[in-house]
Amino acid sequence: MSEWFDTKGKALSLDPANRGFQYGDGLFETIAIRGGKPRLWQSHLERLVKGCERLGLETTPDSLECVLDSALSGCEQDTSYCIAKIIVTAASGVRGYGRSAPSPGEIYVGVFPATPRDKNVYRDGVDTMLCETRLATGSPVAGLKTINRIEQVLASSECRAAGLFEGFTRDADDRLICGTISNVFIVTNNRIRTPSLDRCGVEGTMRRLVIDLLNDQGTGVEVCDLAEDDLAAADEVFITNSQMGAVPVRRCGDYEWDIGSTTHRVLGLLADFGIEECRA
Amino acid sequence: MSEWFDTKGKALSLDPANRGFQYGDGLFETIAIRGGKPRLWQSHLERLVKGCERLGLETTPDSLECVLDSALSGCEQDTSYCIAKIIVTAASGVRGYGRSAPSPGEIYVGVFPATPRDKNVYRDGVDTMLCETRLATGSPVAGLKTINRIEQVLASSECRAAGLFEGFTRDADDRLICGTISNVFIVTNNRIRTPSLDRCGVEGTMRRLVIDLLNDQGTGVEVCDLAEDDLAAADEVFITNSQMGAVPVRRCGDYEWDIGSTTHRVLGLLADFGIEECRA
Repeated sequence: MSEWFDTKGKALSLDPANRGFQYGDGLFETIAIRGGKPRLWQSHLERLVKGCERLGLETTPDSLECVLDSALSGCEQDTSYCIAKIIVTAASGVRGYGRSAPSPGEIYVGVFPATPRDKNVYRDGVDTMLCETRLATGSPVAGLKTINRIEQVLASSECRAAGLFEGFTRDADDRLICGTISNVFIVTNNRIRTPSLDRCGVEGTMRRLVIDLLNDQGTGVEVCDLAEDDLAAADEVFITNSQMGAVPVRRCGDYEWDIGSTTHRVLGLLADFGIEECRA
Repeated sequence: MSEWFDTKGKALSLDPANRGFQYGDGLFETIAIRGGKPRLWQSHLERLVKGCERLGLETTPDSLECVLDSALSGCEQDTSYCIAKIIVTAASGVRGYGRSAPSPGEIYVGVFPATPRDKNVYRDGVDTMLCETRLATGSPVAGLKTINRIEQVLASSECRAAGLFEGFTRDADDRLICGTISNVFIVTNNRIRTPSLDRCGVEGTMRRLVIDLLNDQGTGVEVCDLAEDDLAAADEVFITNSQMGAVPVRRCGDYEWDIGSTTHRVLGLLADFGIEECRA
């Protein structure tokens, strides 16, 4: 099913001394491949380069693009609709947590077949829950997509057990932060708000696009602290991620919402931008 | 230099789909091997089993012991003084953060040569610093040794750049938590205190041993919230880890301490227990 590549061509195995495996010393991006091309590539690249700078990993945008292109062109499967995952880790070799910074980065690319979400997900919305698993707050890598995702593993396993589409995570101080695989937007009295991600959470590329598209139309999105009470008081809720665009949320635990005009407008803006999944 | 094993014998490579590499979905222990035997094995085992329960990973103490024994006996190098690292990850196979819990655990063991710390480390103490890198607080895996160690990588890289033996980390709320590879004890007016690790940090096996040995002698160690001011006011400071036992700290930034009677007493207790490194 999967094809894993490194910078030297196809790589079916990994050195167990790899610092990503040993310490989570790395980052990743999960990119929607549509029509054989990486979607929102510049946004993914920007976050990855920012992450590499923060972690002190040497890479160049050119090398990242080149590895992805080569993986896609060398891929034996149909890449019209699939997912590419790029992982950048610190090179193997140094034992112990500390290393020189910057250190050389190692790039791995995996390409996987994908299945579009069912149309009724966009039409009817999805059911979610509030996860018990909390995100630690004040992370030195807040906003970035490091390999250190044990909190998301635990939270997402809760949704999986409950048979729900997604779960919302709060931080240790009860702030609403994001979904396990998505960012969340809340609409209340026509105000559109999304949680601040400066203490924990991942700044999604689709979140960025929604904020930018609304901003271009003169509609500001407030990035601020939010809590469960804000969910309870919301008129509409929707989630975003790079693979599915935006998806309306119908329910989170006991809270229920209609799919309102703002959510429909956001879906329309994304569809017009070229996020095909969001087309009605 | 290194030898990596899995449960089926020697394994020189790793599946890139491994969930430890992909998401940090795993735990590890770093065990001092002395005279060919794992030191403080029961403590390591207890923490690992507790971690596997928390993460929903299926393992048994017997299987962990068996894999380590087989790695040590099959090892080509001298195991009289070395380090074994056991990594347990969720089995490969499920893409996406969520998985069923419990899930099967995969065990990897690496054995590495070690070099004893120079005697003057124990006699003269070591120089440390306060790291800029903070630990996020309220972690759902506080106390455990998951693969998610990016905070320690960043903090330890600070010490490495400064050429110092160790760095102390604080959490996002300015509490003193631990060293990058050690736990910390502070002695003030004959009170012995060590930071609470219920919000972040790793509960070290040597920390546990020091608390237990002192307790056996009727000397309680207070496990509590501590801050930089407590370092400033301390009479003595020492650090512990599984490889080196206890080591006196001479300096942290501008704060300096003498090596006092409590530190000498702890070194003596550990030496008597069989932690040879601490013998004067």
